Amino acid sequence: MKKHNYSAGPCILPQEVFEKSAQAILNFNNSDLSILEISHRSKDFVAVMEEARALAIELLGLEGKGYQALFLAGGASLEFLMTPYNLMKENGKAAYLDSGTWASAAIKEAKFFGETVIVASSKDENYNHVPKGYTIPTDADYFHCTSNNTIFGTQMKEFPTLDIPMVCDMSSDIFSRNIDFSKFAIIYAGAQKNMGPAGTTLVVVKEEILGKNGRNIPSMLDYAKHIKAESMYNTPSVFPVYASLLTLQWLKNLGGIPAIEKINNAKANLLYTEIDRNPLFKGTAVVEDRSTMNATFLLDTPLHTDTFNAMLKEAGIIGLPGHRSVGGYRASMYNAMPLDSVQVLVDVMKDLENKI
Amino acid sequence: MKKHNYSAGPCILPQEVFEKSAQAILNFNNSDLSILEISHRSKDFVAVMEEARALAIELLGLEGKGYQALFLAGGASLEFLMTPYNLMKENGKAAYLDSGTWASAAIKEAKFFGETVIVASSKDENYNHVPKGYTIPTDADYFHCTSNNTIFGTQMKEFPTLDIPMVCDMSSDIFSRNIDFSKFAIIYAGAQKNMGPAGTTLVVVKEEILGKNGRNIPSMLDYAKHIKAESMYNTPSVFPVYASLLTLQWLKNLGGIPAIEKINNAKANLLYTEIDRNPLFKGTAVVEDRSTMNATFLLDTPLHTDTFNAMLKEAGIIGLPGHRSVGGYRASMYNAMPLDSVQVLVDVMKDLENKI
Repeated sequence: MKKHNYSAGPCILPQEVFEKSAQAILNFNNSDLSILEISHRSKDFVAVMEEARALAIELLGLEGKGYQALFLAGGASLEFLMTPYNLMKENGKAAYLDSGTWASAAIKEAKFFGETVIVASSKDENYNHVPKGYTIPTDADYFHCTSNNTIFGTQMKEFPTLDIPMVCDMSSDIFSRNIDFSKFAIIYAGAQKNMGPAGTTLVVVKEEILGKNGRNIPSMLDYAKHIKAESMYNTPSVFPVYASLLTLQWLKNLGGIPAIEKINNAKANLLYTEIDRNPLFKGTAVVEDRSTMNATFLLDTPLHTDTFNAMLKEAGIIGLPGHRSVGGYRASMYNAMPLDSVQVLVDVMKDLENKI
Repeated sequence: MKKHNYSAGPCILPQEVFEKSAQAILNFNNSDLSILEISHRSKDFVAVMEEARALAIELLGLEGKGYQALFLAGGASLEFLMTPYNLMKENGKAAYLDSGTWASAAIKEAKFFGETVIVASSKDENYNHVPKGYTIPTDADYFHCTSNNTIFGTQMKEFPTLDIPMVCDMSSDIFSRNIDFSKFAIIYAGAQKNMGPAGTTLVVVKEEILGKNGRNIPSMLDYAKHIKAESMYNTPSVFPVYASLLTLQWLKNLGGIPAIEKINNAKANLLYTEIDRNPLFKGTAVVEDRSTMNATFLLDTPLHTDTFNAMLKEAGIIGLPGHRSVGGYRASMYNAMPLDSVQVLVDVMKDLENKI
């Protein structure tokens, strides 16, 4: 039965990524070897890593601008501590925007390294919006923000222009919309939303910002060492990197970020229009900050929950329950989610209205 | 063409692991979903993680002995710093055995955290043996050793009995031979030799040793936090963990470590007997320390190199070149390598002798 996978991540990937990566497990590049058994130093895998790194930079429009792309292990959660380790000075300070659960988790780790200024927080409103109108201290070593808040369904629509380095956790909306990515000193993103399966993390670093904070950094946490080793300081996550490359190739063939952004906007418009029109539903995020990736909404009354859930199941829709901190529903419409699947969800919402 | 894959890691895995994991990418557990797109919090994947953790403990004979198994990201190289972070006291010290390149890399990272005593080193003899007869300071916070030195083809045959915690990097020979694993406080191993594809690392921790060194540890580097979260503190490497479970299931069905140890000994005996018998070859590791996993050997003269390499290629043997620091050849015969493949290599060695 055809499933419509609304999981928040790991999540849907393009069908051709499943097919090509399954084939590579049985026989990679007609080598009579599995992608799982080849050396990461083999010519074939070095080519995968090089292409993945170059394609990430190309898709983000950062060619020739002094950036390096790395595919590291550990998830975005490891970047929560690598960022301050590499950028915060001893006795320095960092500025953070607290826009959700993951922003808050990043703040917690930064505090291990020094003073961490929270420039603004929407925690008191259960993160139903992205804070605005804040002041970023000009003497901070860097400013950290989160472009999309998966759990709360909010998304930063604008980013400040700063004289200090800006770091952004783009785990849940990288490659989904056009941004001037050259505004950022470091962009990081766990693969498992728009880029690939779980097990690797893209880190895009402007090389010139490294090596300036005076800290002695353990090797595996040192971006400069990973760059010098061309993202092979130690054995990389071979298969997750390969599947990420396939996903980036799919995106490039589709027309890159400009093309997917149109599709993502169409999906989001379709769903939010129904949420606003249908008297049985209401959105939880303030309208101006609504995420194109994760739409969070509630049923008007718990009386309809069982009926709606049964209809979702009947339609093959999975992964729709909201995070426990928000409740209700969360429709994650990452890059690989087709417009048709969003139409199936909207049809179920209309059917519920007709049935009640 | 049938290949005989002697790569040092990532390396050969059981054929059924390739087949089952490729199938799971197309349709996992008849869910009509790919293993790459399911949530790590889904019932199906939580079951994978739980079974993998329990099976690792079972195969090592550690059930009911206070150990927890974790599948973490980052590779053994990240454990080089997690181990001291979790066990070395502020102003404490650790004792390390320097038996090879990876032992030496672990020592380098420990020095970020405090005094690191090298109890013995075989570096001056290019690590051709495992040091013996050393004294371990009784006031060290822990003793660290490396059970198998992939690059140099040496293996520890005995482990000390200590009153301080013993930590062992078993990346290249875990699950290959019976050891009293309960002697160790922490065992860690990158998956990509005997356990699965690259992208996850098994860490087996005796719980009672944690939380005693007085350090404030960043969350992702804190074993206690990973244990509390049942190895899901953040999104784990879903596919590498699943493929590791398939490999552990294969090992259990085969009869576990006692069964594979017999096969590994037979493979090693077959190859070392030929290395010693054939006048064209000589081993590089001292005989008593020879590894059952990685056999390192040289041709008697470079004159035969091209001929031998061509014969290897003709026989479908790949991954045999030695590491640049030793030269010559390295035959990695991990658990999934069949005895037949070793026979193919031995036959080529005999053929070379007949041809010359």
